[in-house]
Amino acid sequence: MKVLGIIAEYNPFHNGHLYHLEESKRLSMADFVVCVMSGNFIQRGEPAIVNKWARAEMALFSGADLVVELPTVYAMASAEFFAFGAVKILDSLGIVDFICFGSERGSIGELEKIAEVLHQQPASFRRFLKEQLDRGLSFPAAREYALRRYFGDDSAISGDIEQIMGSSNSILGIEYLKALKRLGSHITPLTISRIGNEYNSEEITGSISSATAIRKLISDFPGRDFTSKLEKVLPPSSLAVLQREFKHGRGPVFPQNFDDIIIACARKMTAEQISSLPYVSEGLENRIKEAAGISGSFNQLIENISTKRYTRTRLQRSILSMLTGLTSTEFETFNKFGGPQYIRVLGFNPKGRQMLSMINKKATLPVIVKTANFKNSCNPLLRRMLDIESSATDMYVLGYSNPEFRKAGQEFTQNVIRVDVPAQAGCSQSPSQQL
Amino acid sequence: MKVLGIIAEYNPFHNGHLYHLEESKRLSMADFVVCVMSGNFIQRGEPAIVNKWARAEMALFSGADLVVELPTVYAMASAEFFAFGAVKILDSLGIVDFICFGSERGSIGELEKIAEVLHQQPASFRRFLKEQLDRGLSFPAAREYALRRYFGDDSAISGDIEQIMGSSNSILGIEYLKALKRLGSHITPLTISRIGNEYNSEEITGSISSATAIRKLISDFPGRDFTSKLEKVLPPSSLAVLQREFKHGRGPVFPQNFDDIIIACARKMTAEQISSLPYVSEGLENRIKEAAGISGSFNQLIENISTKRYTRTRLQRSILSMLTGLTSTEFETFNKFGGPQYIRVLGFNPKGRQMLSMINKKATLPVIVKTANFKNSCNPLLRRMLDIESSATDMYVLGYSNPEFRKAGQEFTQNVIRVDVPAQAGCSQSPSQQL
Repeated sequence: MKVLGIIAEYNPFHNGHLYHLEESKRLSMADFVVCVMSGNFIQRGEPAIVNKWARAEMALFSGADLVVELPTVYAMASAEFFAFGAVKILDSLGIVDFICFGSERGSIGELEKIAEVLHQQPASFRRFLKEQLDRGLSFPAAREYALRRYFGDDSAISGDIEQIMGSSNSILGIEYLKALKRLGSHITPLTISRIGNEYNSEEITGSISSATAIRKLISDFPGRDFTSKLEKVLPPSSLAVLQREFKHGRGPVFPQNFDDIIIACARKMTAEQISSLPYVSEGLENRIKEAAGISGSFNQLIENISTKRYTRTRLQRSILSMLTGLTSTEFETFNKFGGPQYIRVLGFNPKGRQMLSMINKKATLPVIVKTANFKNSCNPLLRRMLDIESSATDMYVLGYSNPEFRKAGQEFTQNVIRVDVPAQAGCSQSPSQQL
Repeated sequence: MKVLGIIAEYNPFHNGHLYHLEESKRLSMADFVVCVMSGNFIQRGEPAIVNKWARAEMALFSGADLVVELPTVYAMASAEFFAFGAVKILDSLGIVDFICFGSERGSIGELEKIAEVLHQQPASFRRFLKEQLDRGLSFPAAREYALRRYFGDDSAISGDIEQIMGSSNSILGIEYLKALKRLGSHITPLTISRIGNEYNSEEITGSISSATAIRKLISDFPGRDFTSKLEKVLPPSSLAVLQREFKHGRGPVFPQNFDDIIIACARKMTAEQISSLPYVSEGLENRIKEAAGISGSFNQLIENISTKRYTRTRLQRSILSMLTGLTSTEFETFNKFGGPQYIRVLGFNPKGRQMLSMINKKATLPVIVKTANFKNSCNPLLRRMLDIESSATDMYVLGYSNPEFRKAGQEFTQNVIRVDVPAQAGCSQSPSQQL
């Protein structure tokens, strides 16, 4: 009996995800699939288009048996810590055999080689990296340069470094491999080629489109006449879940829904308070404070802060931490004490339920099905991580148009999602999630 | 040469205000008129429909010669402190002879009698008041009862107490009289009867309508086809200013524009932080914190908190102090050290400029025309009061739909409004305020 682990955001779950899920199952010949999925805020520092329960439900309708949550602390972290958090959770389940990720560039061998360098950090690599950072290059650019220098002789790989490190998916793949090394995990990594258009492409073409393109389409048609276009690129069950959520006024949630809150928070916070946010240092707090004054929206704020050194996604993650309350000191503490403090179940189907009984025996972290039961956990780090999750959700729901669903505390009242049909039965069971 | 002082919010300036202004001038035979006007937030704990510079301009077009600001600390205070702040500023100008306020109930003699009791607080009155507060009555209800008991014998007034104390304008009038007593001011108070419909009436009838009715009309027609109705109840110059502001996306600003910010702030603040807000005590902080969780809008929040004891306007003032940053300790400090710390000029016409040169000689508080010059004042209370004003404006502008005007720092960059036509020339000079 084999278990496949997948790391995802499903924002929203589309045909590309379905293809990846099915190919991964075929390749790994796994009997069970568990997804670790970002919560209400995603890695690029944005709110997800619909909430995590709806997105877990989409995954369960399309082939996942169990969906667990990547806590916001790690879901909204740099690629390195996003990957670490996700791999740590998969590893902690105690039953995962494979992890399968998409990669449009680089064989697993090449990615492994790079991951090894980044994990071991040989002295010469460290020197090359420091030189470039001192020259004022952004971290990704400096790292790419240092890798090229390091692999100078190994011509087979050094020619591909630029392509590999220029792909956000390959970078994530490398980080997954690094995390497996760091944890001494026995999970076997597999890659499959991605098909369809690029991750960040904004065009809808054919049956496979990027999540970015899909979100843009929804954003461009607030009148909602996008069904015929979305039908081509989403499994029917995903479309049904999305439509139900939108109908109830629980989305679509976009970054601009948080314009007022973000600008108000940034104006109210002192530079010193801002400097306590993750990834804010070296005077960036003053830059943010100043930009808060001249910016009227989240987008303007980011544009007014970003430079070659401070990338947009990094800044968005810092700024959204104003909403969750996570500080850089807390983030360091979590990292020092093992990372994620719990395995939180978002949803399952009957096979997922079977997995849960195995997990309950083998897991190396507490398994949370009812969050309310863990409000008084004796582990202060667990309580704080759950508290941040709860704050994130209390803010996320302010992105809804329907006041009825803007209530706080849903982190503790929302039931785990149960899907009773076999995976991939599509829409035969109509989505029925209640919030 | 006589100077008339008027206390107003002009939210917006309408025919009723024009009537009051003209009647007050006629009654006092004054040569000059100075208005002390609330800033961007008003006494009932709401944002003003357009900003203070636009509202000052309306007043200058309709008969005021000089408009000075009632700092938000006092503009958004209870009737007692609103009146104290406003009267203190008029008194500090050193040139005001009369203050004239509207009152639909009670002669000035009756109001004076009540003001004297509330100012002197005779022992028997204090006892009656305490009894009722201990019974759980709201402060206004307990005060009314205690006054009735106190005047028991003086049948001429006691029969009218209920009517007088049931009118928010009479209560304000009494507070103006109390403040004059407290300050030992030489200003002579005058009252004139109000005409047209009630302060809080929501109906547009005839040529005089309440500001509430006018705001409701604007709110009900977001498509802006309200010109023909507003023409009847606003001076043409007021309508022109409003239309210009709306056209530029600087309004109309309504409480609901702050729904997201207020709910997010209330959810982010701890009960302890909330307890530092003005007028929050005796566990109200927990009530607010709890309500923040279950409320999706400012209105819902207030509805979920208010009780017989905590009136809606009192709560709105506390909640909006989250935006300005004013704490109850600071408020007490300001009151202890004289109240308003400065006289801030919002606008003037040529006669107002003449007044300013007289004021500069006689004023007992610093006169601010350029706020930026006072950022480094040696008086820490002045700096803090200006800082609160600036925070209030930085938040207020987030109520604008046009991102261009949502920039912070307008408190220090907006020029004073100069209107060059003689007062009441109406719209012959078209409003041209630039922000």
